[in-house]
Amino acid sequence: MSEQKEKVILGIDLGGTGIKIGLVNQSYEILAQTVVPTNAKRHYKQIIADMGNAAAALLVDNGYRLDECLCAGVGSPGTVDSHSGTVLYSNNIRWDNVPLAEELYKYLWMPVYVNNDANCAALGEVVKGAAKGCKNAIFLTLGTGVGGGVVIDGKIFEGGHPGGVELGHIKNGTEGRRCTCGRLDCLETYASATALIKEAKEAAISCHESLLWELCGEDPEEMNAKIPFDAAWAQDVWGMKLVENYIRHLADGITDLVNIFRPDLVVLGGGVCAQGEKLTEPLNRFLQENCFGAGVSYIPQVVTAQNGNDAGIIGAASFAYRQFAEGNIV
Amino acid sequence: MSEQKEKVILGIDLGGTGIKIGLVNQSYEILAQTVVPTNAKRHYKQIIADMGNAAAALLVDNGYRLDECLCAGVGSPGTVDSHSGTVLYSNNIRWDNVPLAEELYKYLWMPVYVNNDANCAALGEVVKGAAKGCKNAIFLTLGTGVGGGVVIDGKIFEGGHPGGVELGHIKNGTEGRRCTCGRLDCLETYASATALIKEAKEAAISCHESLLWELCGEDPEEMNAKIPFDAAWAQDVWGMKLVENYIRHLADGITDLVNIFRPDLVVLGGGVCAQGEKLTEPLNRFLQENCFGAGVSYIPQVVTAQNGNDAGIIGAASFAYRQFAEGNIV
Repeated sequence: MSEQKEKVILGIDLGGTGIKIGLVNQSYEILAQTVVPTNAKRHYKQIIADMGNAAAALLVDNGYRLDECLCAGVGSPGTVDSHSGTVLYSNNIRWDNVPLAEELYKYLWMPVYVNNDANCAALGEVVKGAAKGCKNAIFLTLGTGVGGGVVIDGKIFEGGHPGGVELGHIKNGTEGRRCTCGRLDCLETYASATALIKEAKEAAISCHESLLWELCGEDPEEMNAKIPFDAAWAQDVWGMKLVENYIRHLADGITDLVNIFRPDLVVLGGGVCAQGEKLTEPLNRFLQENCFGAGVSYIPQVVTAQNGNDAGIIGAASFAYRQFAEGNIV
Repeated sequence: MSEQKEKVILGIDLGGTGIKIGLVNQSYEILAQTVVPTNAKRHYKQIIADMGNAAAALLVDNGYRLDECLCAGVGSPGTVDSHSGTVLYSNNIRWDNVPLAEELYKYLWMPVYVNNDANCAALGEVVKGAAKGCKNAIFLTLGTGVGGGVVIDGKIFEGGHPGGVELGHIKNGTEGRRCTCGRLDCLETYASATALIKEAKEAAISCHESLLWELCGEDPEEMNAKIPFDAAWAQDVWGMKLVENYIRHLADGITDLVNIFRPDLVVLGGGVCAQGEKLTEPLNRFLQENCFGAGVSYIPQVVTAQNGNDAGIIGAASFAYRQFAEGNIV
């Protein structure tokens, strides 16, 4: 008699450039993974065909039949109706009302669940990551934009209608910065890596004595989000000013979210979180002083994410497995 | 054989000045009500004794025995742990860790449930009011401060820990206005009736030609939140500027909350909402243009509350009845 084989889960991270597909066990360990190009300009059916075929091949190549996989989860950019598994719209891949779950099912013959990628990543950090064991957590990803996910009572919080939980799109300043969403002064226009890089470029160009100029090799196009932190750490006044300003805006945004959700923990993901305590220490100090009820209420710690490059796969797999375990069918 | 008597519910609205107590049927119609002074400086046990005795008397005076009342609900200012029925702290009545449910039970011998007053009012508008039939709604009260409540899936949303859902305490400007919570530039410092009155006073004092000065009878102490709207409606430049500024700040705050919660409806309560469409029409216009996903996502309407002075009683009764019906015991 052969030992019973543990069934697996597919976690799929749909990005603008590539589709990462992972084979995950029920402890959310990645057993194998692959990546296929998105080529986002194609018809969605072609993209999903590649996704489905690559996922099926990943299973087979690793010795699993389709019926040895419990379910598949996809984390998608943009606004998703998770109840129907539809991507309502995504600037990133230019999708509009794409029935992703339905279409992917044609290739995989197993339950397919879809949610926003940041929502998935939030759950991923709760099931296996920085917020493991927390019932309530906020996840903010500081990258091209500011994405966010909220877990309440162990579940992804999705708001009343699709288009909620857009944590990067709360007001954060009055400089009149135009956000990609059309509004002025969203948190994203101050706290994304893009915003920090843009300001660092401008500072480097306007002041060649600054360390910023030196660290980007005197080529502003080589600026990245790490350089201002390195410059600040080396006591460069321009770098210090940039980082101080960046952290103050981010701290204000996180304080807003804590006053609304009051989670156990705030988890930061995205490239900027590589700064670790250089980032979280001043944020935590600000929260202790500025959250509503400081001194009497519970104030969560801000920490950095742990799932790193696997966040998309683990997040999507965790969402799918939770939905599957609850018996939800798309 | 006598007809079966419908059992009733007690709804109690604990305020800084008075305690309003209402006898409510299961359709949330108020059958009778009374009010007793809070005298907030007394020991909490004395205050709760008055509350309990007056509530018991209200039942008896209207022909109900205690066991003909299903349960009692109290809406309290401040931060409440609804699971234990404890008021954790309240600036308003200067309470600190008061076991309100436990103490009130001694007088009423029925299940007692306690929640924050704005949370209760939000649920009240959903069970009987402007948001009747909605599953998801945001309630904002524009008064001394800006209070808020959120109903998600028909239930009061309380966040992960007490001290959440402080909707008036999200950042809304950069003028450096100090909020009562200690932080700078909370929504409350721009969108409360208090903030509007303060600005209108200053404008009246600094410009005696303005209609603001005339409408307050040339006595700034007589300023109220209606006067700037009346002045604006009469095309007074000062009034128009004040109201435009007030609405812009409020609109930004509501947009933040819609981007986070994406509810079916946004309900405004408090004195300022007497302005009706003068207030809601420009807010709705702003939301249609500024919410994330404008043009593709669902954008809720902003309306004014309907429960008026009964909001406290109906809200507290609705919270209690929902908890009771679910079999929750404090």
